[in-house]
Amino acid sequence: MPRIEVGKPTPYPIVIGEGVLKEVPRSQGPYALLYDQNVEGFAQEVAEALGVPHRLGLKGGEGAKTLEVYGKVLSWLAQRGLPRNTTLLVVGGGTLTDLGGFVAATYLRGIPYLAFPTTTLAVVDASVGGKTGLNLPEGKNLVGAFHFPRGVYAEVGALRTLPAFTFREGLVEAFKHGLIAGDEALLEVEGLSPEHPSLAGYLARAVAVKVAITEEDPLERGKRRLLNLGHTLGHALEAKTRHALPHGAAVAYGLLYAALLGRALGGEDLLPSIRGLLLWLAPPKLPPLFWEELLPYLLRDKKKVSESLHWVVPLGLGRLEVRPLPEALLKEAFALWQEELARLALLEG
Amino acid sequence: MPRIEVGKPTPYPIVIGEGVLKEVPRSQGPYALLYDQNVEGFAQEVAEALGVPHRLGLKGGEGAKTLEVYGKVLSWLAQRGLPRNTTLLVVGGGTLTDLGGFVAATYLRGIPYLAFPTTTLAVVDASVGGKTGLNLPEGKNLVGAFHFPRGVYAEVGALRTLPAFTFREGLVEAFKHGLIAGDEALLEVEGLSPEHPSLAGYLARAVAVKVAITEEDPLERGKRRLLNLGHTLGHALEAKTRHALPHGAAVAYGLLYAALLGRALGGEDLLPSIRGLLLWLAPPKLPPLFWEELLPYLLRDKKKVSESLHWVVPLGLGRLEVRPLPEALLKEAFALWQEELARLALLEG
Repeated sequence: MPRIEVGKPTPYPIVIGEGVLKEVPRSQGPYALLYDQNVEGFAQEVAEALGVPHRLGLKGGEGAKTLEVYGKVLSWLAQRGLPRNTTLLVVGGGTLTDLGGFVAATYLRGIPYLAFPTTTLAVVDASVGGKTGLNLPEGKNLVGAFHFPRGVYAEVGALRTLPAFTFREGLVEAFKHGLIAGDEALLEVEGLSPEHPSLAGYLARAVAVKVAITEEDPLERGKRRLLNLGHTLGHALEAKTRHALPHGAAVAYGLLYAALLGRALGGEDLLPSIRGLLLWLAPPKLPPLFWEELLPYLLRDKKKVSESLHWVVPLGLGRLEVRPLPEALLKEAFALWQEELARLALLEG
Repeated sequence: MPRIEVGKPTPYPIVIGEGVLKEVPRSQGPYALLYDQNVEGFAQEVAEALGVPHRLGLKGGEGAKTLEVYGKVLSWLAQRGLPRNTTLLVVGGGTLTDLGGFVAATYLRGIPYLAFPTTTLAVVDASVGGKTGLNLPEGKNLVGAFHFPRGVYAEVGALRTLPAFTFREGLVEAFKHGLIAGDEALLEVEGLSPEHPSLAGYLARAVAVKVAITEEDPLERGKRRLLNLGHTLGHALEAKTRHALPHGAAVAYGLLYAALLGRALGGEDLLPSIRGLLLWLAPPKLPPLFWEELLPYLLRDKKKVSESLHWVVPLGLGRLEVRPLPEALLKEAFALWQEELARLALLEG
């Protein structure tokens, strides 16, 4: 079964495959289980495998990442008098692991937790890097902590219950990791399905890219910024659509734009493979947009980093640059981007 | 001016004296100031000295340590778009620094902060050890993080506005540090007042004890448990009185009980100096209590540590033991404790 050993800052395994529950080492202290009601069946399996008396089901999605739900989970733990050596088990997608990880980071000033990601996005993205957190009314992920799980156990069987689009969406991040690391195998998403025998291996390969990058730059000071490839425009599209656009779709659109920037700067033409990604993904269409409409959402990112807006630009497979860009070039690429979208029949109306 | 350099886990200075604001190094990023409305005047001085545009005044006390106030402060920071290199300045007593420290630990997954403690308790206790956190409806300090300030600046001038009892109360912890470290100078609280020229030196000496212990045991696995001297009974008294009894008073009562346990185990007789402490402190009187009434509150502590109740017992100055004790001995000491209280005219009715 594919297994990746994360080394820094704290060592833990990421196990991906069929029947991962057999791989979970038993803890001496008590367990408490937090799960997304959407995957109640798998949560039940986890609870039975580990003998968990305390279980709390929540509605997944961004609605789970609020201070209100956070307080509810904390009180649930406290009412049961659960001590510092309790292991919190978190079963669900990225929103549940973000919430559960933050609860574990802060309940009694920190308890251990294990993550059981049940979406492709959570496997590829949320299981590495130690980011946990919540949203505020003012914006996403504005509160949180770095807190690493003691282990991540991704059951491929649980991915079979995912809606087809959600399954594909998560693999956009894996594709992105392929661009960053120059790993062509990760660009071949087309054949993948929840039943495909190479799925676990593919996911492990994508995870390994993120592990390597975050180990080199745990606190997002340098190389880790490469992981933002496609995310600058992606986040702006998400904000502009008030998060009606799914994250994976926004990133895929952002990758197309990044590829256009790369080509404009004399880089390799990566458009063919990204067009392939978009056609396979079949994301929701976008409304026609003016550059000026999107600009305020782009600059919001800038304000947060307190410096001029930097773009992650792919100049070829595994060859990326992080740099500010002149607005004229950004606008030109934006016009080409809209033309591409029209050609791919991804523009509304 | 007395200055203690904390070394681990992150280095920072604790500066205590008159005119500490001159000692604060300037940050490159923006400042935001969180302060207790009770010390508005001193907060104003801090804001002017550092040129702080963003200020939020709160009502201090345990009411500040709620998820609700926490969310309010986070939103206040987010609405101003304050970036990751913002330094949060926290001016107030221990409840404000606990809250502000936790905000700093988690806003944008962690920003730097400086503490300006304005009570003797906050200087001696809250400025060392990195504990930050909030209360839940289920109990005190059940949520939080370890997050160390970049510096602690204790202005002795600000202590002059404290109510006299609050001033004395904080020094109970300093006295406790004297017992733990065997530093007799710390037992001489009687002459101290906000105006006394040796106050800054006395506070620095008490702080140094806690610094030495927490550096040796940052995560409270071993030696740091000595700091709980007087707190086992103290916490139970606080809980039993629904926190009507001030913390310093509860700890002073707890020290008396601990001294009786020490004497019963053949230790040195520390009662004379603790009687002196209580007479000087003039704490609120206690109602007569039965051992059986207090027991559930003592056992609550036990549940949290998931092991049998341990007592910190002083067998002499600087000579302590941490151990479980038979109930017969605990009950006997409890009876003697009530007799002592009656003799000191600290029992109601």
